[in-house]
Amino acid sequence: MPELRKDPIVGRWVIISVERGKRPSDFASPSQKRKAAGFCPFCPGNEYTTPEEIMAFRAPDSQPNSTGWTLRVVPNKFPALHVQGELNKSGEGIFDKMNGVGAHEVIIETPDHISSLATMPPRAVEDVLRAYHMRIADLKKDPRIKYVLVFKNEGEAAGASLEHTHSQLIALPIIPKIVREELNSSRLYYDMKERCIFCDLVAQELEDERRVVCENEHYLAIAPFAPRGPFETWILPKEHESAFRPRNGSFSLLAEILQRVLKQLDKLLDVPPYNFIIHTSHFTEESNEYYHWHIELMPKLTKIAGFEWGSGFYINPTPPEDAARYMREVHI
Amino acid sequence: MPELRKDPIVGRWVIISVERGKRPSDFASPSQKRKAAGFCPFCPGNEYTTPEEIMAFRAPDSQPNSTGWTLRVVPNKFPALHVQGELNKSGEGIFDKMNGVGAHEVIIETPDHISSLATMPPRAVEDVLRAYHMRIADLKKDPRIKYVLVFKNEGEAAGASLEHTHSQLIALPIIPKIVREELNSSRLYYDMKERCIFCDLVAQELEDERRVVCENEHYLAIAPFAPRGPFETWILPKEHESAFRPRNGSFSLLAEILQRVLKQLDKLLDVPPYNFIIHTSHFTEESNEYYHWHIELMPKLTKIAGFEWGSGFYINPTPPEDAARYMREVHI
Repeated sequence: MPELRKDPIVGRWVIISVERGKRPSDFASPSQKRKAAGFCPFCPGNEYTTPEEIMAFRAPDSQPNSTGWTLRVVPNKFPALHVQGELNKSGEGIFDKMNGVGAHEVIIETPDHISSLATMPPRAVEDVLRAYHMRIADLKKDPRIKYVLVFKNEGEAAGASLEHTHSQLIALPIIPKIVREELNSSRLYYDMKERCIFCDLVAQELEDERRVVCENEHYLAIAPFAPRGPFETWILPKEHESAFRPRNGSFSLLAEILQRVLKQLDKLLDVPPYNFIIHTSHFTEESNEYYHWHIELMPKLTKIAGFEWGSGFYINPTPPEDAARYMREVHI
Repeated sequence: MPELRKDPIVGRWVIISVERGKRPSDFASPSQKRKAAGFCPFCPGNEYTTPEEIMAFRAPDSQPNSTGWTLRVVPNKFPALHVQGELNKSGEGIFDKMNGVGAHEVIIETPDHISSLATMPPRAVEDVLRAYHMRIADLKKDPRIKYVLVFKNEGEAAGASLEHTHSQLIALPIIPKIVREELNSSRLYYDMKERCIFCDLVAQELEDERRVVCENEHYLAIAPFAPRGPFETWILPKEHESAFRPRNGSFSLLAEILQRVLKQLDKLLDVPPYNFIIHTSHFTEESNEYYHWHIELMPKLTKIAGFEWGSGFYINPTPPEDAARYMREVHI
């Protein structure tokens, strides 16, 4: 008998095929190993083909928009939102709209075209996380910006249009719906219990162990209880922390667990396409007792069909208890 | 400047590229024209390969599970939910779950392997809608069932695993999240205004005209104000009607407008993959003043990437005003 499970935070129900679960080998997703064929605008020497860099980690003697960098952040060449202009909100009968003020940036994670977040040196992963944090801190100063969404599409099937490893961020004048749902729901829980729902989740998962993928001193990776798809993985700080930030001034342990999870997935699913997104607290109450930042990561293994799209209801053929066990057992 | 628009019903924000919108020819989706190669379990003569039929429209002298039918409804061979068993709800710390009681059925829309909903005779489309209605009416009698979700995945890219045209339904012991959001929000609107939000929407769209795709005496097809993707189309009854049902005892006008929309999309986008889903009122208050049933249809033209998946926030490169105009101008 399949099982219906409810995500405790956003209240989303999923169907889990508990008795005849799909194993990693049942998913035939195209391997995202990089081939490095053709011209790449993100490779060193081609800096002139991107919009001018917003920031970079580069050798002290190098010039902006030239070689000598280890990481670059540039505006998206085809931005979903524009930086210039006043934020005008208006109505049209029952409809609400505002002009598309915001930012859309690309984090070019490494000069090496063949590397991925799973294969680059740990220090480079740390730098990527540090760049996210620096960009969020900078964009937060803009009073028009209410939220910054950091995300990564890895592989064409997951929406990446360029092979060279990169992440993106979109700075928004509104709080996105799913984040708002998480905020509202965790605030409600806090009002009832005086505890953070994510802290309770971390405690329960550590006690239960079945859905634990891996952990280190500060972070925990789990297969969530009601995952939307096979091998969905969350990474959370073990101690309460509402907004994405370094721990004791460093991102090294976060980089370690993120890379470990990615290496496990690569090994298990032959370098699958995936998406991840960072959910952090909103700027207006960034430090609070009820919300707990985290990373949600989902390999792209199944097609999202009409049922999921029109219902918010997912069918997942791999129980998270199995997924976590496969992940734990893989040798990386 | 792009525009941020909010869906008035579920409060979802989307980014619309209003100034450099993508035209139909900018989308290269694989044509879903049928090829009829190989063995098909849904073709006449192969009835023995499906689970036993639940209902069928067939010649009076024909036998169940044999040829002679024009439409068959069979259980899904790999059901997401099971019909047998008691509905047990239980908790596990902060988690909630129940066993997967429900139904998962397939509506084989025609014996003709090459036909689609867009190309079959209008009377056959009417029969498909009639079959949906009959199955919902039957499943409603089961006290364990709270909702029936009718949906269609057309084409492999939209999640269809078999080419022969078919729809599906999933009968659920809970109300799916998006439907619950629509119900809650339209009830709230009704409490404030004593009017149905969908009725207000229909009136505004008919007055405005820019997003009208087509209409007939009883139904309206529109490109919604805040569509999640290019050419998303909704079909609604013009007069208030909370639950999916025939109009004056007939589905002929609904079949007419649904087929017209599908023919327009096929012509404009070269037989695109698509999903549609029927949103109807919940069984516990099926006849009410605040909710208004409708069909949501989305051609599968863009990839849903991490941003959309993790935020509930969509980027749509085709303004609905353009999409509706393209649809109106196509000759079918």
